[in-house]
Amino acid sequence: MSMRIRAYEPRDWPGVWAVLEPVFRAGQTYAVPTDISEADAREMWVEQPRFVFVAEEPGEDPDREQGILGTYFIKTNQAGPGDHVCNCGYVVSERARGRGLASAMCVHSQAEARRAGYRGMQYNLVVATNTGAVRLWQKNGFDIVGTLPGAFRHPTEGFVDAHVMFKLLGDG
Amino acid sequence: MSMRIRAYEPRDWPGVWAVLEPVFRAGQTYAVPTDISEADAREMWVEQPRFVFVAEEPGEDPDREQGILGTYFIKTNQAGPGDHVCNCGYVVSERARGRGLASAMCVHSQAEARRAGYRGMQYNLVVATNTGAVRLWQKNGFDIVGTLPGAFRHPTEGFVDAHVMFKLLGDG
Repeated sequence: MSMRIRAYEPRDWPGVWAVLEPVFRAGQTYAVPTDISEADAREMWVEQPRFVFVAEEPGEDPDREQGILGTYFIKTNQAGPGDHVCNCGYVVSERARGRGLASAMCVHSQAEARRAGYRGMQYNLVVATNTGAVRLWQKNGFDIVGTLPGAFRHPTEGFVDAHVMFKLLGDG
Repeated sequence: MSMRIRAYEPRDWPGVWAVLEPVFRAGQTYAVPTDISEADAREMWVEQPRFVFVAEEPGEDPDREQGILGTYFIKTNQAGPGDHVCNCGYVVSERARGRGLASAMCVHSQAEARRAGYRGMQYNLVVATNTGAVRLWQKNGFDIVGTLPGAFRHPTEGFVDAHVMFKLLGDG
């Protein structure tokens, strides 16, 4: 891993959007409208969540849009008596795939979530056809606790299942 | 069932809040802060959802706060390629328990959801200790598709499991 993960700053947005946009437009992995506006994406990804991080090449000029290779958020998944469980979303840029960045962000997010006091991490909708992601989260200690039948409209596969995945964070 | 279920109107709010408040304050069944303000509860229950209904005694003066016996909402559970699945929340007033109102609202909500074009209905967090509710949803055709370990802080039981429950609406 030659990449650095650090807290998001507002000037990172163009680079973050460059990472998110093709993934959202493709509509194969995220329950996000494929025609989402940049403003709504910014609201959803960096304004509403509690923490947002970016991964970048070390030494990259941070003003260069090309510097951002991935991003993730942490938010509280349910309110009140459910607020000890967090939810995260991760996106890796096309050109950074295969370098272990998703896994590195997953590990990073668990440490950050523990530090913030969360006891569990839940992924609410992992598209079943996204088998690479499912395997990756399993390798990182997440269980498929349930499968939602036909809960995702895949652009080429039609209605496909989605998994709810969960990890208790207590044991590191 | 001598009760009538109809669309919520703004003047119903005091009666709806009288039903919701004791349930939210008790903190045993809903992932809602036990100290939620009335304004935030109104935002969450009647402003954000797509549809809101109330159950009342027929012939009750609708201006009387006491007329509302139960309430439920329907909202879209996930955006974009997940927006064909809805989520509902139901609350029955203390004095209307045991009269089949929760079941009646569940049946009503499925018809309304189908009419709105939803293909599935998902309950994201059914507290496992709320066994009456779990059984009731099962009787109404919902499956426990997954169990979230310790996802709810019960005021007397401590960390308890919560179920994700799901029903495909296609088959009526």
